[in-house]
Amino acid sequence: MTAPLPDLLITPIVQAALAEDLGRAGDVTAMACIDAEARLSVAFVSRKPGVAAGLACARLAIHALDPDATFEMRVADGDPLAPGSVLATAQGNARAILSAERTGLNLLGRLCGVATLTRAYVDAVDGTGARIVDTRKTTPGLRHLEKYAVRCGGGVNHRFGLDDAILIKDNHIAACGGVAEAVRRARAFAGHLMKVEVEVDGLDQLEDALRYGPDVVMLDNFSLDELRAAVAAAKGRAVLEASGGVNLQTVRAIAETGVDVISVGALTHSAMALDIGLDAI
Amino acid sequence: MTAPLPDLLITPIVQAALAEDLGRAGDVTAMACIDAEARLSVAFVSRKPGVAAGLACARLAIHALDPDATFEMRVADGDPLAPGSVLATAQGNARAILSAERTGLNLLGRLCGVATLTRAYVDAVDGTGARIVDTRKTTPGLRHLEKYAVRCGGGVNHRFGLDDAILIKDNHIAACGGVAEAVRRARAFAGHLMKVEVEVDGLDQLEDALRYGPDVVMLDNFSLDELRAAVAAAKGRAVLEASGGVNLQTVRAIAETGVDVISVGALTHSAMALDIGLDAI
Amino acid sequence: MTAPLPDLLITPIVQAALAEDLGRAGDVTAMACIDAEARLSVAFVSRKPGVAAGLACARLAIHALDPDATFEMRVADGDPLAPGSVLATAQGNARAILSAERTGLNLLGRLCGVATLTRAYVDAVDGTGARIVDTRKTTPGLRHLEKYAVRCGGGVNHRFGLDDAILIKDNHIAACGGVAEAVRRARAFAGHLMKVEVEVDGLDQLEDALRYGPDVVMLDNFSLDELRAAVAAAKGRAVLEASGGVNLQTVRAIAETGVDVISVGALTHSAMALDIGLDAI
Amino acid sequence: MTAPLPDLLITPIVQAALAEDLGRAGDVTAMACIDAEARLSVAFVSRKPGVAAGLACARLAIHALDPDATFEMRVADGDPLAPGSVLATAQGNARAILSAERTGLNLLGRLCGVATLTRAYVDAVDGTGARIVDTRKTTPGLRHLEKYAVRCGGGVNHRFGLDDAILIKDNHIAACGGVAEAVRRARAFAGHLMKVEVEVDGLDQLEDALRYGPDVVMLDNFSLDELRAAVAAAKGRAVLEASGGVNLQTVRAIAETGVDVISVGALTHSAMALDIGLDAI
Amino acid sequence: MTAPLPDLLITPIVQAALAEDLGRAGDVTAMACIDAEARLSVAFVSRKPGVAAGLACARLAIHALDPDATFEMRVADGDPLAPGSVLATAQGNARAILSAERTGLNLLGRLCGVATLTRAYVDAVDGTGARIVDTRKTTPGLRHLEKYAVRCGGGVNHRFGLDDAILIKDNHIAACGGVAEAVRRARAFAGHLMKVEVEVDGLDQLEDALRYGPDVVMLDNFSLDELRAAVAAAKGRAVLEASGGVNLQTVRAIAETGVDVISVGALTHSAMALDIGLDAI
Amino acid sequence: MTAPLPDLLITPIVQAALAEDLGRAGDVTAMACIDAEARLSVAFVSRKPGVAAGLACARLAIHALDPDATFEMRVADGDPLAPGSVLATAQGNARAILSAERTGLNLLGRLCGVATLTRAYVDAVDGTGARIVDTRKTTPGLRHLEKYAVRCGGGVNHRFGLDDAILIKDNHIAACGGVAEAVRRARAFAGHLMKVEVEVDGLDQLEDALRYGPDVVMLDNFSLDELRAAVAAAKGRAVLEASGGVNLQTVRAIAETGVDVISVGALTHSAMALDIGLDAI
Repeated sequence: MTAPLPDLLITPIVQAALAEDLGRAGDVTAMACIDAEARLSVAFVSRKPGVAAGLACARLAIHALDPDATFEMRVADGDPLAPGSVLATAQGNARAILSAERTGLNLLGRLCGVATLTRAYVDAVDGTGARIVDTRKTTPGLRHLEKYAVRCGGGVNHRFGLDDAILIKDNHIAACGGVAEAVRRARAFAGHLMKVEVEVDGLDQLEDALRYGPDVVMLDNFSLDELRAAVAAAKGRAVLEASGGVNLQTVRAIAETGVDVISVGALTHSAMALDIGLDAI
Repeated sequence: MTAPLPDLLITPIVQAALAEDLGRAGDVTAMACIDAEARLSVAFVSRKPGVAAGLACARLAIHALDPDATFEMRVADGDPLAPGSVLATAQGNARAILSAERTGLNLLGRLCGVATLTRAYVDAVDGTGARIVDTRKTTPGLRHLEKYAVRCGGGVNHRFGLDDAILIKDNHIAACGGVAEAVRRARAFAGHLMKVEVEVDGLDQLEDALRYGPDVVMLDNFSLDELRAAVAAAKGRAVLEASGGVNLQTVRAIAETGVDVISVGALTHSAMALDIGLDAI
Repeated sequence: MTAPLPDLLITPIVQAALAEDLGRAGDVTAMACIDAEARLSVAFVSRKPGVAAGLACARLAIHALDPDATFEMRVADGDPLAPGSVLATAQGNARAILSAERTGLNLLGRLCGVATLTRAYVDAVDGTGARIVDTRKTTPGLRHLEKYAVRCGGGVNHRFGLDDAILIKDNHIAACGGVAEAVRRARAFAGHLMKVEVEVDGLDQLEDALRYGPDVVMLDNFSLDELRAAVAAAKGRAVLEASGGVNLQTVRAIAETGVDVISVGALTHSAMALDIGLDAI
Repeated sequence: MTAPLPDLLITPIVQAALAEDLGRAGDVTAMACIDAEARLSVAFVSRKPGVAAGLACARLAIHALDPDATFEMRVADGDPLAPGSVLATAQGNARAILSAERTGLNLLGRLCGVATLTRAYVDAVDGTGARIVDTRKTTPGLRHLEKYAVRCGGGVNHRFGLDDAILIKDNHIAACGGVAEAVRRARAFAGHLMKVEVEVDGLDQLEDALRYGPDVVMLDNFSLDELRAAVAAAKGRAVLEASGGVNLQTVRAIAETGVDVISVGALTHSAMALDIGLDAI
Repeated sequence: MTAPLPDLLITPIVQAALAEDLGRAGDVTAMACIDAEARLSVAFVSRKPGVAAGLACARLAIHALDPDATFEMRVADGDPLAPGSVLATAQGNARAILSAERTGLNLLGRLCGVATLTRAYVDAVDGTGARIVDTRKTTPGLRHLEKYAVRCGGGVNHRFGLDDAILIKDNHIAACGGVAEAVRRARAFAGHLMKVEVEVDGLDQLEDALRYGPDVVMLDNFSLDELRAAVAAAKGRAVLEASGGVNLQTVRAIAETGVDVISVGALTHSAMALDIGLDAI
Repeated sequence: MTAPLPDLLITPIVQAALAEDLGRAGDVTAMACIDAEARLSVAFVSRKPGVAAGLACARLAIHALDPDATFEMRVADGDPLAPGSVLATAQGNARAILSAERTGLNLLGRLCGVATLTRAYVDAVDGTGARIVDTRKTTPGLRHLEKYAVRCGGGVNHRFGLDDAILIKDNHIAACGGVAEAVRRARAFAGHLMKVEVEVDGLDQLEDALRYGPDVVMLDNFSLDELRAAVAAAKGRAVLEASGGVNLQTVRAIAETGVDVISVGALTHSAMALDIGLDAI
């Protein structure tokens, strides 16, 4: 099981999402049609194959509206799902469960979608030794949840933000007058617990980039031949990260060049939600 | 131009997204590599064809970090984009612009993605009279932005939440003991400015559903033949909404059955971000 | 019993109100005079006749300061109250209950006041078929609670905000160059779940206003004769809403003109708080 | 002019009120009917006589939606208003002004209502030397605004919360075993900048209450004769506050008994909003 | 035991502090090294002598991450601590306790530090009748907690903010054209529950300052002789507060001059955190 | 000049601190004594030698209450201060400046205090090559400001939270059954941009700790001899951090053992505020 996030980091998001959906009047359909004391038993069921991630969101959504509802997880985050897999069951006040349904499913479906896509990439590079990592191309407000879903899918996390590692890109290099100088300044600035990564756009930048010992070199939009050349030149001198032009068709060949890490923006910016439904049981 | 949202409804999201990205230490790369007073001119450039939506997010991201930066829109929300289209240009403090880049692009790319996908559906039903509408399957916290992007793409909005219209589904019908009774209760509950929609799963429910005059009937997962039969039976007695199994391959045939409205969850839950970049100019 | 709001929509208001009252030092009188472990039993008692609304506010105020206190409702929201009626009893930590008292009473008294005034209007039109509805003239921050109280008093809700229905007024008509054109634009803009209402200031505007099929026509400041004429001309073609100059003396005559709906700003902007006290028992 | 509150204490309330009114979609009527670039000039006009209070709320509401709008105050908070008095004029984006209208008027009308009612009480006791003060029976979330409006009406503020003065009531006295002991404990607890007030329900408690030197004695629900007796016995030994059963018919007689201060809950819990309109000019 | 603050006033601070420490990814060390189900028993142990204050912060930090953890207080706020004193024990989920450790200790150590320093001042003036009070030189966001800690140490609180008492300083006096006039204006402005304090910089201002009956006179940076002279002149006419140049070496002599109150900014702006550790048991 | 934080990361703290100080009524002394239109010119002046840090806090405090005030920095963050040094001057509305004074000074004094203490440590190890770093023993809510102040003082930052680096301590080692296994698990968990540090309590743990290649080894409470031995054994195999028992008397000797980094909790948990005043000019 993937190490879970504390509820404290999820509850505010779930409550804000519920408030967004309930609006000012609350669930008028449930008020009109469902008895205040009615009970309901439901199952969260996957309609498609995938990977579980974010069950806590569904649990917290239901408990936000009915603290006494039961919620039983049937799978753990990171587990594979088949069509028809029951992720969890819940029982409680019918209005509460129906009012929480869409919020729970929106979060759960999105996170399972991220985990599912990540797993596809991870499986595609199986055995090569390359790790699949995410980017900062996440949904505003949900970064830590989406990065958690990446972990559920077997991926590994890149930076969490602008503040936890240095990543030197073209504009920084231009401002410093050269890639070596940029790395030198970064090294001088960074504390002993902060890593330094530098992005290079071609093989000709590679030696300069390595001069001041960056922890990671990002090889941006390199061809497979260029990647192989970079690996031959630099493997072991820094972690090598391939980036750009990565998709499920290309990722294995990229991994087989010997790079250590492959970053994939699509994991979070273009994952389709996994189709999960709430069935009365 | 699509009628814009007030900045007041966007600023909190942009600021929270920036805070999420800046973390506790801020943009350490910019601090290390970019002079505090350096200036930068940039263009937001589309790498793919699409539809513009959410330029205000990019503007507000930059102004949140440099209130004195210039930001010039070159297209309006709703305009078509070609590869290479410049959406906007900006000039200001280099650190500020680079620190705001990812936040601005994350929001802009997502909203353009929603608008672009919506436009594809709208174009696919062109001339049929059917309207493409969204659902509540939106990103938690971004619903009003994503529904705005649907409008930019030429779509129309369904309910904004659980509170602004009644939408009777299977669980509500079961709780009421029948579809007619459910609509009757909803009518009695609803104020004079609230509409009532009822979902039916088959033609056999249709007449019962119509008995108490709902404003809208959702025909859920109907075959094309069933849709045609429903249109023949009910057109003009209520707005008819097709839902379920809608994709870009099926949507035109659905529209040609004569339904009034086609709702598409994918507009928001599975749109891929449009690839937009920030180029120094 | 009026369908209750989820606690999730009330708790933030109660907690903010308590924080406002407790300030930075907390309840210094209770600290000075009441033993930390002392217990207290209290009853919320109405001093005047009225209608109950907002008991959840009192419950949540007490539980915010003593989660283990008991709180027993003796009436339900919407029930009539006589002088001396006990609305609820509570037992718990004495400091907590006394510190929560004013916050609980402020919210409860205000909401009972709204429900009580609403009931007076509803009773006044009894048998006429007209419905009493509220307006957006509510207390900032408390709109959904006050509209809930209107429902407790037997009233029905108008729009909840600027976003859930279109209401065309004089300035909009002027901007469109005429009432018919304004309704036409609104119809084109509105999704299939959004209603359109138009306000007219005189009988001469009525036919134009009806041309593009608004859902509701508001007859603003019409005399009784004008209302009767409007009903004769338009009943059944749109819902007819009387507005302006409504008070408890005039409301029945207005209702007897045959209008469908009467909106009353005073329900929320000028209701007097119901006098409720907290008695030790 | 009454000393104004800093905008910092008003802006969050205005912005929250606007967000409450704009909801998720914004002002759909303005979007549908008003051109995005249209301009509007308006005047805030009183329909009734009263006292101005809270003009900053109207200004901040308009500026929140159009930072470039002009807003010109024609009266100052605390000034008298006649029917037709123009409080302020504004000019700016038409959509922005119309979207801000209701929020601005809701706050302005409420605060003018409080100031107007306060002024009536203050005028009623003119020449007696008694001061009219408010209570903590305020609208949750708006206490500091309503207490400001009391000052605009010529009143004086009682405690702002549970924390800025000690006010010993019957439950506290019961818990301490007597009024003298309660005051003694309060004195021991209070810092040198915190005052102590004690409420007495009858003349027989008065000497005990005074024994340990409270700053203020509240004479709760005393008859006029009792008030006179209390004044005779205690004037100058503590500030004497009359409370309970105060209305515009009784307040002058109460003031003439010689009490120093008269507290009136109705100032805030039952003031009717002053009728103010927004006229296009 | 010092009267505790309601949890409602502490929980938001503890949760914000935890969120600050957990960041976006949570406690990665615990995730990597500690089993999700592992249990831990710990004791909060003082490494130094001091005074307890803020145990609720440690309790709430642990319960925020493990609501089912036990937390047993072994001392009460205000109790003396020796090296090795156990303040509390807790048992619960190991990850939760370790993740909460630093937040709990940061708050607890700071508040114990304030209480400890306060107690040193209070002990230093023992028997003189002078009271030790704090100032507004507190940590932004923690004022009410630090003032609570001052109470735990035996001190008394000065103003809680700019709003709960009037304190006239040199700039105010200059603006009024003299100290007497400043006090006169303050008296006229203040309600009957607000005290007025005036700061004087020399004996020559004293009589003027007293003319309009301030509640408190602050003698700022007076020498011991000047303090004695001020006491001789003014004792009993107002509370006399010594301020400025107070430290543990000078405080007793100051107290022996006969002043009523001695304010010490260092209590909150320069207290060292008490060294408290969390030991596995 | 130390690279400044974006205002976006400071403004919320300044506004919350002002709101805390203004309370519900605002600055009653300024209201009573200062004319609404009065102007004031002031200087922020250091009373003691030190290092500047946090001038933006003072600027934002003043601008929050008077957006049109001028604020001119005379020194930059990181600059040395002598008694009498003017840090900045401001001119604007007198009430606004006086109301902002304490909030501005509280933040500025605290941050200058941290920078000043840091500089003392940095100077003490001058020439040794050791870097002074902070810890997570910061003020709740102010961590990023205090870590910024550490940078202003010439120090370097350790982890910003539980999430941006792995730091294995005794409890984690115990849970893993040994230090080598703990580092192995951490390495497997960490992404390519996250560093791993491990704390050892004695020389006997050192080789085990190094087996799986941690980035940093913390030598906790080592004697000088032990530090020298650790340096001899491990220098260059990992960054070596000394921790525990560090003060201004011991720090140079520790630095001279050859460790790379010395972490000092006192920088943030026990820095005394620098004495800064606001003088009218």
